[in-house]
Amino acid sequence: MSEESIDYLFHPKSIAVAGVSGGSDRWNPGRLLMKSLMDFGFKGEIYAVNPSGGEIDGSQIYKSLADIPGSVDYVISAIPASYTPQLVKECGEKGVNAVQFFTSGFGEIEADEGKRLESEILRIARASGVRILGPNCMGLYCPQTGLTFALDFPDHGGGFPSQAGSLGFVSQSGGNTMYCIREGASRGVYFSKAVSYGNGIDLAETDFLEYLADDPDTRVIALYTEGVRDGMRFMNALKRAANAKPVIVQKAGATDGGIRAAASHTGAIAGSSVIWSSLLKQFGAIQVFSIEEMIDMALLFLRDFLPAGRNVAIVGVGGGASVLAAEECACAGLSVPPLPIEVRQRLRSISAVDAGRFFVNPVDMTTLHFEKMVEAMKAIADFDQIDMLLFQMGFDAWALLDMKSVIEPYISSIIKLRSILDKPLAVVLHSQATYQAKQLYTKVSTSLHKANLPVYPSVSRAAVAINRLIGYHGWYQSHDKKNS
Amino acid sequence: MSEESIDYLFHPKSIAVAGVSGGSDRWNPGRLLMKSLMDFGFKGEIYAVNPSGGEIDGSQIYKSLADIPGSVDYVISAIPASYTPQLVKECGEKGVNAVQFFTSGFGEIEADEGKRLESEILRIARASGVRILGPNCMGLYCPQTGLTFALDFPDHGGGFPSQAGSLGFVSQSGGNTMYCIREGASRGVYFSKAVSYGNGIDLAETDFLEYLADDPDTRVIALYTEGVRDGMRFMNALKRAANAKPVIVQKAGATDGGIRAAASHTGAIAGSSVIWSSLLKQFGAIQVFSIEEMIDMALLFLRDFLPAGRNVAIVGVGGGASVLAAEECACAGLSVPPLPIEVRQRLRSISAVDAGRFFVNPVDMTTLHFEKMVEAMKAIADFDQIDMLLFQMGFDAWALLDMKSVIEPYISSIIKLRSILDKPLAVVLHSQATYQAKQLYTKVSTSLHKANLPVYPSVSRAAVAINRLIGYHGWYQSHDKKNS
Repeated sequence: MSEESIDYLFHPKSIAVAGVSGGSDRWNPGRLLMKSLMDFGFKGEIYAVNPSGGEIDGSQIYKSLADIPGSVDYVISAIPASYTPQLVKECGEKGVNAVQFFTSGFGEIEADEGKRLESEILRIARASGVRILGPNCMGLYCPQTGLTFALDFPDHGGGFPSQAGSLGFVSQSGGNTMYCIREGASRGVYFSKAVSYGNGIDLAETDFLEYLADDPDTRVIALYTEGVRDGMRFMNALKRAANAKPVIVQKAGATDGGIRAAASHTGAIAGSSVIWSSLLKQFGAIQVFSIEEMIDMALLFLRDFLPAGRNVAIVGVGGGASVLAAEECACAGLSVPPLPIEVRQRLRSISAVDAGRFFVNPVDMTTLHFEKMVEAMKAIADFDQIDMLLFQMGFDAWALLDMKSVIEPYISSIIKLRSILDKPLAVVLHSQATYQAKQLYTKVSTSLHKANLPVYPSVSRAAVAINRLIGYHGWYQSHDKKNS
Repeated sequence: MSEESIDYLFHPKSIAVAGVSGGSDRWNPGRLLMKSLMDFGFKGEIYAVNPSGGEIDGSQIYKSLADIPGSVDYVISAIPASYTPQLVKECGEKGVNAVQFFTSGFGEIEADEGKRLESEILRIARASGVRILGPNCMGLYCPQTGLTFALDFPDHGGGFPSQAGSLGFVSQSGGNTMYCIREGASRGVYFSKAVSYGNGIDLAETDFLEYLADDPDTRVIALYTEGVRDGMRFMNALKRAANAKPVIVQKAGATDGGIRAAASHTGAIAGSSVIWSSLLKQFGAIQVFSIEEMIDMALLFLRDFLPAGRNVAIVGVGGGASVLAAEECACAGLSVPPLPIEVRQRLRSISAVDAGRFFVNPVDMTTLHFEKMVEAMKAIADFDQIDMLLFQMGFDAWALLDMKSVIEPYISSIIKLRSILDKPLAVVLHSQATYQAKQLYTKVSTSLHKANLPVYPSVSRAAVAINRLIGYHGWYQSHDKKNS
């Protein structure tokens, strides 16, 4: 493996897409991949290649890479697997830096032919200095330079956010990469780079882990892997990356079915889940078990949510909801300490109503008076044994309230709280059963994201992420020492 | 406690709402409770009561129960707590069967006055044969007879579904009852009766458990409790109910914060969570840990999802999604057995494409050809070591497809599968990050509900519920014996 930086991968000046059909098939993958780059605003040259030649949207389709007049930095292959050795050969001759294979039908299929083809293209690439991404992968997403692979259904606006952020994501699975980007965007989490590397026969998780550890645009790294090839090199890269910035890892393939699927999916050899878990722990990486948990976790880092300990005050609407919120926090590993009598009396005087409220922590304010809610939150945050505040509201009922007169002022107050409180605040908008509630969630959470507040769809999702965050920082121990 | 049936509670001929204001306050709870009954189509008489008298929407507000010309079966109280002893006295004099206290400010508040009031109203009620529901509760929901308590925001259509179903729900928490009804409706689960009993000083969980066990309109019982008062009586009722039909129980108040919140919420004494868990297990009740899990569970019973064992075949779209689906099934306790070579070959010939697919179980079909999907599902269901099929698709990408030409025929095919396959089928529509995906989920899941298919928003939610179902039926053991 080369020690040189692979930063050039994310800054190609020209891209050729091999396998673009000039025919009428609007589902032709080469065509979709090319169109998605153009739509996303890639600023360099984009060339279409197909041995049949022809035209696409008035532009020439070149019969080979050699026919392209200018230089080509990066090639995206959407051609059948059997033609790929020839393409890699042409890449070498053209001086291409790297070729990404959307093409599948390699090591992941049952027939031996797949593995043979992988060896062949790798041999040809190594001989000419061409790097390979994939095969059987979606490739690169980099909003800053206009790279994307959102080939799905461009006619319906299926692209990815063009907003750049600071989460770097490396994934063996293309589908999970697409979902992670969409899930991220829906939660206000944007990406510096995302890479789907598929079978990873040349460039793979370790290369990108090394790269992202040094990438100044990346504050947090997330990795979805089904298994690594060079365990020793991966461990070193993981150790170094986790020293540099938070690294969140989802390791799939811990069960028979998962291992079998991983082998079929990307040819990965999954490895023991116990070894993986202890390895991740040892190197200070954070293990998660779903893409949602990955975004839940990244959100805390990217919003600078830094509680001094694990004592949470839960404030919100609804008695039963408060009971369950307390349970979910405690089950996740957080502490829900009782509020002292002075704070409770203060809250009681703010509320002015006793019936149907309670102030023990959890605090059930059940009020539409946002000024009172702000005052109550301040009173709670002043209590020195509280490290963070969690505001919870069930959205099924909220969806029925008036947007202008009730919801918007309430949300504005919550946003104001972020600068008023000297302790971290997370917001949970749970109970989104109805369509109206889902619709309102989208609107309200977008406002809260813009105000830099972490928003969660359930208390348990928030609590699990916060607990992992505290474990990661070892704040719990130092806080305990401080208080003993 | 009386041994007589409390069926009359759900069939009042006349209701009086005490605490209806004739003024301009549209948030007056009495007024909202009355309006919600009228909007919901309650067929009996509805009377408004307030010592100040006056009019509401052209109808008289009676100054007392005694002033009402006809008889009154049921009273809903939205008056301040301090006036409730007088109201209960009047209920006795009027011959009212039961009074429900929306009114809070009783045993759940910190001041002793609350507990004193509870004793007083209970004493008066017992002396005159009036039953009490609550205090501090939402009361009764029964679509069949037009009872409801959806007092939240009627101007915005915040009512509950008027469709009757066969889930009976008993809950200490009013908010959780409201959420459960909305979450249920969004999943195609409808209710025979739902009861929020709050502090439960007279009628409480045990009475309703006994009642629902015998209720012919109730096929499945669900209970949310924060703690019971008469443990022995409850255990007997639970045992009897669980013998009669499936009983699903969420016991809140297992942690310090939860116990504290439960005491403040409904005055409940929570009890040991270990004792609760073993008790529920011993009596064959199914323990769940959230309202969502409760509906997940009820859905399987109500859709007659009856797998002969725990071997699941996972069929769907996406490599990474398939890997994770297999993991989530196995982690929940299901088996994902490999498909034999003959079935894999059959699937390969149906698919006609090898690259980017796999057939091991999980099966990644990644195809938009619904006829092929149906054929593949049939081939898999024919394999005798498969007990059920789980079809999974990520909805973020689907939301971008054309509804008429792609999605509708695909969904129709899935619906057709239900009658074609001789094994149970569950559908998972996961990855709903985008607003479009959430919108599509609402549409598509409604079609699938109507076709009697259980639909889940994630594989793990489906798998956890299915695993509990199999545990409940003890099918696993009998299936193992059959195969050994």
